[in-house]
Amino acid sequence: MSVRIYGAGTSDFGRQPEERATTLGWAAVTEALADAEVSDVDAVYVGSVFGEMGVAQRVLSPLGLTRVPIVRIENACASGTTAFHEGVSAVESGRYGRVLVLGIEHMTRTIRGPIPTEPRDPDSRSGLILPALYAMSATRYREVHGLTNEEMAAVAVKNRGNATLNPRARLGARVTVDEVLGSRMVAEPLTLLQCSPVSDGAAAVVIGPDRKRARDVRVLGTAFASGARWGAGSPSVWGFELVQRVAAAAYRDAGIGPDDVDLVECHDAFTIGEIVTLEALGFAKEGEGGRLGASGETAIGGKKPVNPSGGLLGRGHPLGATGVAQLAEVVVQLRGEAGARQVQGARIGLVETMGGGVAGIDGNGCVVVVLGRSS
Amino acid sequence: MSVRIYGAGTSDFGRQPEERATTLGWAAVTEALADAEVSDVDAVYVGSVFGEMGVAQRVLSPLGLTRVPIVRIENACASGTTAFHEGVSAVESGRYGRVLVLGIEHMTRTIRGPIPTEPRDPDSRSGLILPALYAMSATRYREVHGLTNEEMAAVAVKNRGNATLNPRARLGARVTVDEVLGSRMVAEPLTLLQCSPVSDGAAAVVIGPDRKRARDVRVLGTAFASGARWGAGSPSVWGFELVQRVAAAAYRDAGIGPDDVDLVECHDAFTIGEIVTLEALGFAKEGEGGRLGASGETAIGGKKPVNPSGGLLGRGHPLGATGVAQLAEVVVQLRGEAGARQVQGARIGLVETMGGGVAGIDGNGCVVVVLGRSS
Repeated sequence: MSVRIYGAGTSDFGRQPEERATTLGWAAVTEALADAEVSDVDAVYVGSVFGEMGVAQRVLSPLGLTRVPIVRIENACASGTTAFHEGVSAVESGRYGRVLVLGIEHMTRTIRGPIPTEPRDPDSRSGLILPALYAMSATRYREVHGLTNEEMAAVAVKNRGNATLNPRARLGARVTVDEVLGSRMVAEPLTLLQCSPVSDGAAAVVIGPDRKRARDVRVLGTAFASGARWGAGSPSVWGFELVQRVAAAAYRDAGIGPDDVDLVECHDAFTIGEIVTLEALGFAKEGEGGRLGASGETAIGGKKPVNPSGGLLGRGHPLGATGVAQLAEVVVQLRGEAGARQVQGARIGLVETMGGGVAGIDGNGCVVVVLGRSS
Repeated sequence: MSVRIYGAGTSDFGRQPEERATTLGWAAVTEALADAEVSDVDAVYVGSVFGEMGVAQRVLSPLGLTRVPIVRIENACASGTTAFHEGVSAVESGRYGRVLVLGIEHMTRTIRGPIPTEPRDPDSRSGLILPALYAMSATRYREVHGLTNEEMAAVAVKNRGNATLNPRARLGARVTVDEVLGSRMVAEPLTLLQCSPVSDGAAAVVIGPDRKRARDVRVLGTAFASGARWGAGSPSVWGFELVQRVAAAAYRDAGIGPDDVDLVECHDAFTIGEIVTLEALGFAKEGEGGRLGASGETAIGGKKPVNPSGGLLGRGHPLGATGVAQLAEVVVQLRGEAGARQVQGARIGLVETMGGGVAGIDGNGCVVVVLGRSS
């Protein structure tokens, strides 16, 4: 694939109810354009879930970037990476030259507690909201594979700690396993610190065809699909089959395998999510993902660093912004510019995002992207 | 362009608060698949503004259509045609074979009166919502070009009347110019019957590469862009420059001009909208659009039939569904299957949709599509 990421930018991530969405968007877009050394683009793809109509135009208009096609995509938690996937496909087919991908979400002023249920939906009305869905995954996984609460908590300890090394992640905090397990129970066995916090943020990348610039990052492969309805009779926990299938397609597209990946930004919306996802991505056998965080293997200095940015748990999870922030983190890492959280010698990085609908079980979406250093 | 529309389907359009969005979606999708004579697709593009997260998956899951990429797009009133444009581009580039495009919107249970303002936005907070924006267009147009209230009302009389010939348009009614002008004033000079009603509906088309089937409809051209910020100092009324620019690109893509178009489905969200749009599309000189409806030129039996389906005024305007319903109407017309509202001998049809953000002025989006008979 000949598509490159020219530049990346983000706003601060965290609870910023005092900021407008547009202010966050401007921070991300202006940084990405400057980093890319371009001043205009041929199209814009935007990931946002709760943004009002025209949310992207409010950001782009004062920057003089609105005369081009602007496509706003909602794909739940995977909105940002879905926008990226669509943008990459458009560049790859020659339809556009340069494309801006923006992820933007302001949640703290409107969303209190978990993402609201859809009152007309029988699943979500009966309580099957996302924390409950992940709690069911954790319970089932624990029964089948013998996962401990301490192994789950280790994921939160790692990612929230990593976020303290990321100046853009305002929610970072060094916490202990005991603190994680002692925090308020949200959905048994998931405690509060095992859930990604509602937050605000924006992130942007500029992509385009190869222009022989060493700082540009290569898009080695990208894949996107949705899942089938999940239920008690499904062979694996929620999302496993989908992530595995999409990852296989992305590895094929990139011509690499899991062993070639130097760092990962994946969808740790809840601690159990990272564990299951790492197995689906091929970094551990099914049932062995729990040891990865607990053993230090996925720490920044470990064999396979996962979520060095802090992940959704440590950076927060402004839905539409998350996927693009994951991409921005891998860009910074592959350039060796990640400072205190730098993964040494990183040459290939992987981004994975999975999102579901309100109840999350009726055809969730997953995007996997593989990026590589240009030189 | 080698892309074809294989099949089209719609639900009823109108006020259907008792129906679920999924029920409307099923009606549209199953009809489109049956019409296309296909049972599965490689990807789905969905236009919806107010649909909750996962709205498309709720429709697609019971039909077994969720394992593919599902991209939900919000682009205000142009959401449905933007989804179509993206789907066509994906087929054209060879990325997918068959693609389902779904437009779906259920508004009557949640939206009362005009589309709600965005409380954080200074323009919409000061009252610059869409009826006000179109009223400003009408006032300015009237000052510059001498449009009469009767000419505006003639558009509503025509389109609401056409809808009585469309069994899927439940809101159709024969009304007189006096009734239109005598209805409640919404935003001077636009009376209630000059405003498209809040409504519910879904529409779908299946597209794919040429398969030498005579019933399939050719996509001759498609274009999409967004506008620059509009204000008092702008040279034309809101949207004119954008529609003109996008139409020029679509005509170029299709290799035709305005005179080649046999019928039009355009964005008559308000009566003044149809008048300005027909000028921007090249069917009348600037300032002469007002006579088109009043003279009968745009009637079903006229020289250039416009909105034979009833348009947004007569069929209603469920935002995300509108653009796909416009496409479905042109498909039916080009096949000669439109019954009492058939435009005789139609060989080329044009669809135009324009949507804005909440206040509508910060980079509105427009899509123009040109369709042709295969044989």
